[in-house]
Amino acid sequence: MEIKPNIPVVYVENLKDFSGKRVQIRGWVYNSRSSGSILFILVRDGTGIVQTVSTKNSLDPEKFELAKRLTQESSIVIWGLVRDDPRAPGGYEIELEDLELVHMAQDYPITPKEHGVAFLMEHRHLWLRSSRQNAILRIRATVIKACRDFLDEQGFLLVDAPILTPAAVEGTTTLFPVDYFGEQAYLSQSGQLYNEAACMAFGRVYCFGPAFRAEKSATRRHLAELWMLEPEAAFYTFEDNLKLQEELVSYVVQTVLEKRQRELQTLKRDIALLKRVTPPFPRITYDQALELLREKGIPLDWGEDFGAPHENAICTSFEKPVFVTHFPAKCKAFYMKPDPDRPEVTLSADLLAPEGYGEIIGGSERIDSLELLEQKLKENNLPKAPYRWYLDLRRYGSVPHSGFGMGIERTVSWICGLEHIRESIPFPRLLEKMYP
Amino acid sequence: MEIKPNIPVVYVENLKDFSGKRVQIRGWVYNSRSSGSILFILVRDGTGIVQTVSTKNSLDPEKFELAKRLTQESSIVIWGLVRDDPRAPGGYEIELEDLELVHMAQDYPITPKEHGVAFLMEHRHLWLRSSRQNAILRIRATVIKACRDFLDEQGFLLVDAPILTPAAVEGTTTLFPVDYFGEQAYLSQSGQLYNEAACMAFGRVYCFGPAFRAEKSATRRHLAELWMLEPEAAFYTFEDNLKLQEELVSYVVQTVLEKRQRELQTLKRDIALLKRVTPPFPRITYDQALELLREKGIPLDWGEDFGAPHENAICTSFEKPVFVTHFPAKCKAFYMKPDPDRPEVTLSADLLAPEGYGEIIGGSERIDSLELLEQKLKENNLPKAPYRWYLDLRRYGSVPHSGFGMGIERTVSWICGLEHIRESIPFPRLLEKMYP
Repeated sequence: MEIKPNIPVVYVENLKDFSGKRVQIRGWVYNSRSSGSILFILVRDGTGIVQTVSTKNSLDPEKFELAKRLTQESSIVIWGLVRDDPRAPGGYEIELEDLELVHMAQDYPITPKEHGVAFLMEHRHLWLRSSRQNAILRIRATVIKACRDFLDEQGFLLVDAPILTPAAVEGTTTLFPVDYFGEQAYLSQSGQLYNEAACMAFGRVYCFGPAFRAEKSATRRHLAELWMLEPEAAFYTFEDNLKLQEELVSYVVQTVLEKRQRELQTLKRDIALLKRVTPPFPRITYDQALELLREKGIPLDWGEDFGAPHENAICTSFEKPVFVTHFPAKCKAFYMKPDPDRPEVTLSADLLAPEGYGEIIGGSERIDSLELLEQKLKENNLPKAPYRWYLDLRRYGSVPHSGFGMGIERTVSWICGLEHIRESIPFPRLLEKMYP
Repeated sequence: MEIKPNIPVVYVENLKDFSGKRVQIRGWVYNSRSSGSILFILVRDGTGIVQTVSTKNSLDPEKFELAKRLTQESSIVIWGLVRDDPRAPGGYEIELEDLELVHMAQDYPITPKEHGVAFLMEHRHLWLRSSRQNAILRIRATVIKACRDFLDEQGFLLVDAPILTPAAVEGTTTLFPVDYFGEQAYLSQSGQLYNEAACMAFGRVYCFGPAFRAEKSATRRHLAELWMLEPEAAFYTFEDNLKLQEELVSYVVQTVLEKRQRELQTLKRDIALLKRVTPPFPRITYDQALELLREKGIPLDWGEDFGAPHENAICTSFEKPVFVTHFPAKCKAFYMKPDPDRPEVTLSADLLAPEGYGEIIGGSERIDSLELLEQKLKENNLPKAPYRWYLDLRRYGSVPHSGFGMGIERTVSWICGLEHIRESIPFPRLLEKMYP
């Protein structure tokens, strides 16, 4: 790749700083068309797409012929003058002055015509290059950074939970077993139990990493491999926990609105719906939710957990994310703290995203009494041995503490307005789907 | 937990903003001693440790008796006046005015006396509360944040690589197999191949996540589960790659020096050695390294990879991290680009940390020619089918590209000056060690 003196190598996303100047850009041919003796090549470099204009006057004749022969996704280096052009995508156009071919692509499989999902998934490594996938995954990166920045700023410490674990948090039916040097291990479904140990050591912590669910069902909302943000804080009550969640989610959405305008436009996202996402969020109890479901004609017995239709009916009744609180103990995990005023329900809450997206967060205050926790293990037929260390946390300076888990892909799907969760992660792992 | 009007709930790390004021702190008893009628309780809250002073005058007699009975790691809420005290750890002391017991701990297993490593590892969930472990893991969080901030700032995009993968990057002997809905899957050892797809879509990317090595040997430098930062950039040459590495590592070290002074002090780290870590880093070729090893009396045959003694001999010869470049193709991975001037060596480099810490980064320019890559797969007896998508990257707009993998735990071990890598991660996974 040639370097020319005094011509900076720039990225498309930074073109605004180079209006009226000569630049070098390295990228790929996204699309091209000619109009008479003018050739328009759209060049993408991963940070954006810029339109280039070539004529026989601007470009050496040999290079002009080369430019005409360029195929989709061929890699090139270009030099040219940056001009403001409100009609061009991104607002700038480059008048091509020189061109270097790096690699001529042949028969790129993803053409501007329609392709089936199976085909695109099989070509995920190339599908990522399309402007829609690019927009989604740039938003994903911003969501993740916003989560971390928010918690770091608040004083939460990143304490990574292990992935290989001997015990199961949420039952063994959806666990992936791993042979760990001859011992049975599982891939973590949640870092929560470890977070509880960490918050007793560091005050307020979070872990952020992959979690695994061997779900046997294929839905629009489930991945076998997902990423979870899990904060946990010592001395945080149920109320503190909800406050943290609504502030976090609002910060994430507002940050995406601020930093990823162009990407939201590419996705044709209705941003008016996102602008509403500010604290406080509405709250209803599980009992009130049952009432609502009855009114909507999909009644549920007390003690049953919500399915997708129930979540859908609830969350579409609100314009903002809504907390459903105080779930019955029998449909939630063993470690959730019972409401002292009504022990058959827990100090738990799910946060449901609007527009039918449903649960993006589940959380609760945790049981801090050793006796009660031991009793709950027994009631849930869970063995005590793997939880020995977890019980220790209630032996040595137990404190009230709370936390939650936020699914990154569900959050991204909602913010981007996706129909299926598979587009919210670079390389989705679904039931019977592990390639590429 | 009582809340008193006009008395803010604060964290120890923020005490500097409350000198001369009344505060509430929630935490645990780290240690206590009495001197005559004065009681000193060290309170830790995860963000730091503060000394409190109680007398019968300052505290209600009943509360004073309670304070005297407090055991190690009992959880408490305290109220008192913050006073500057240069002799106190952290520079502040709190005159106790009120006290609430949350939970009285009994027989906390980790006492101020010496404990064996096996015992501490078995109690890792509690060991995290000690000031040394606290300091290490706070530095770890800063290292990770500095890595991300540096790359985000440069314009690299986080694109997560999958953990469950069908193919092996670095051979199958150290892989953990997983049953993936009846198919054979492996836990990822590196996100690199996926990064290469992502950098063709996004220009410059990184992934940051856990990686797994089923190493059958127990050493001071190996974990079965580790975290890796892996940047990959399209159009980056070997030279660009080294520059990025030395800038990243220098930024990380300088950030820790700036933000984690107290923690480095707790660890008694010689910070003069860390202050030297600024670009450029010295570079020697593999051939020059062999020369050095011969002089030091541990000769190695050309083409052999370094073992721990060789790395140690090389890295202790330099005051800064040192790049060893141009490794023989036969001791490196199949995808590394041969030096055009001398094809038996690769455009690769390992970065060795000083003071005997050895390799913290491995990286290279990657092969961009389809024909050469296919030939390398054949030479390495690797099947073509699982690499079909990876080969596609050389079919459709192949470009020069480079990247590297930085081991977070090795980097933390070096910066903290640890003797064993097990302390650099909250819940280490070692050979036959998966509890807690």
